[in-house]
Amino acid sequence: MKANALDRLVTLFSKLPGIGKKSAGRIAYHILESSPVLAETLSRELSGLHQAIIRCGTCGGFTETDPCSVCSDTGRDRSIICVVESAQDMRIIEEAHEFPGVYHVLGGLIAPLDGIGPANLSINKLMDRLHSDHVKELILALNPTVEGDTTALYLQKQLKNLPITVTRLASGMPVGGNIEYIDKLTLLRSLRGRVKI
Amino acid sequence: MKANALDRLVTLFSKLPGIGKKSAGRIAYHILESSPVLAETLSRELSGLHQAIIRCGTCGGFTETDPCSVCSDTGRDRSIICVVESAQDMRIIEEAHEFPGVYHVLGGLIAPLDGIGPANLSINKLMDRLHSDHVKELILALNPTVEGDTTALYLQKQLKNLPITVTRLASGMPVGGNIEYIDKLTLLRSLRGRVKI
Repeated sequence: MKANALDRLVTLFSKLPGIGKKSAGRIAYHILESSPVLAETLSRELSGLHQAIIRCGTCGGFTETDPCSVCSDTGRDRSIICVVESAQDMRIIEEAHEFPGVYHVLGGLIAPLDGIGPANLSINKLMDRLHSDHVKELILALNPTVEGDTTALYLQKQLKNLPITVTRLASGMPVGGNIEYIDKLTLLRSLRGRVKI
Repeated sequence: MKANALDRLVTLFSKLPGIGKKSAGRIAYHILESSPVLAETLSRELSGLHQAIIRCGTCGGFTETDPCSVCSDTGRDRSIICVVESAQDMRIIEEAHEFPGVYHVLGGLIAPLDGIGPANLSINKLMDRLHSDHVKELILALNPTVEGDTTALYLQKQLKNLPITVTRLASGMPVGGNIEYIDKLTLLRSLRGRVKI
């Protein structure tokens, strides 16, 4: 059974994040067994994607218009900037409908082993914003990983002479978690970061 | 942050089998952050999919040419037909490189609760093949589920007056499985279907 177009599609799908070879097969066969409308719609959306979605010139998030809807929203507090690794993290925080400020997408994290230094991230642009926008607080919403910690430390050093409060997302036990199954580092962090009730 | 083209793509992806809302977001952002070539290639493959891949007129599997490469292969044993639920199951068995015969895709399983009866499946076509192709054995490679069992029973009854051996895939413990964690029905089947060593 040699079905080239199908095999090529399975291979393409299997390279997407979180999709293995079996899932890729399931998805490709699902699309083939569905109405051609599904394949056509997906095809159309994909072909127009990079033209329709651009990077916001201010925060670096994905948007259809520049500046993006967050940066151009006059109701948002420009004195608080939430620094995130990627546009996707920005989306996830935005979907929580809790943060009143604006964002800055770094475009990665400092990772010397992968050859990613501060110069590869949009840190200079962040500094420019800090000077021009009268920023009071910078929230570092970076993953609690080695790379996230390194990047947070670097930013903290860069900012220590500026009159800006630098905070970081609380790290500790996830809601619904179980002390029995939590790793030692997380337990240590939640002990150190304990809050008064 | 209103990114319509991106949101539409996330929604489309989240409707594919095995992809939840979070995975769909990850995939869409991955495509957006990758080179436009990925989106274009995926788009092209999807748009041509339903034109390139058709159903084989003999077995019902997906193929680029009719009859498919299995049905047109003169080296295969036409006296053994492996009956499968879907073209995907055919692909999976074919990838094991173990089966020397040909296939027949039913296009589903009998499921009265879902309104799927024998008339909705390609059973008549299978009967025609049995009469014209001098078939000796029919292997029912159907899932060991209620629907699979019902369909196997139905086929068995239809075939009982024909000089054809009807077999079914062995059901029992998966290789690497653990008796401690196996469900009772599977354990019962592997006991009943025990083989002499």
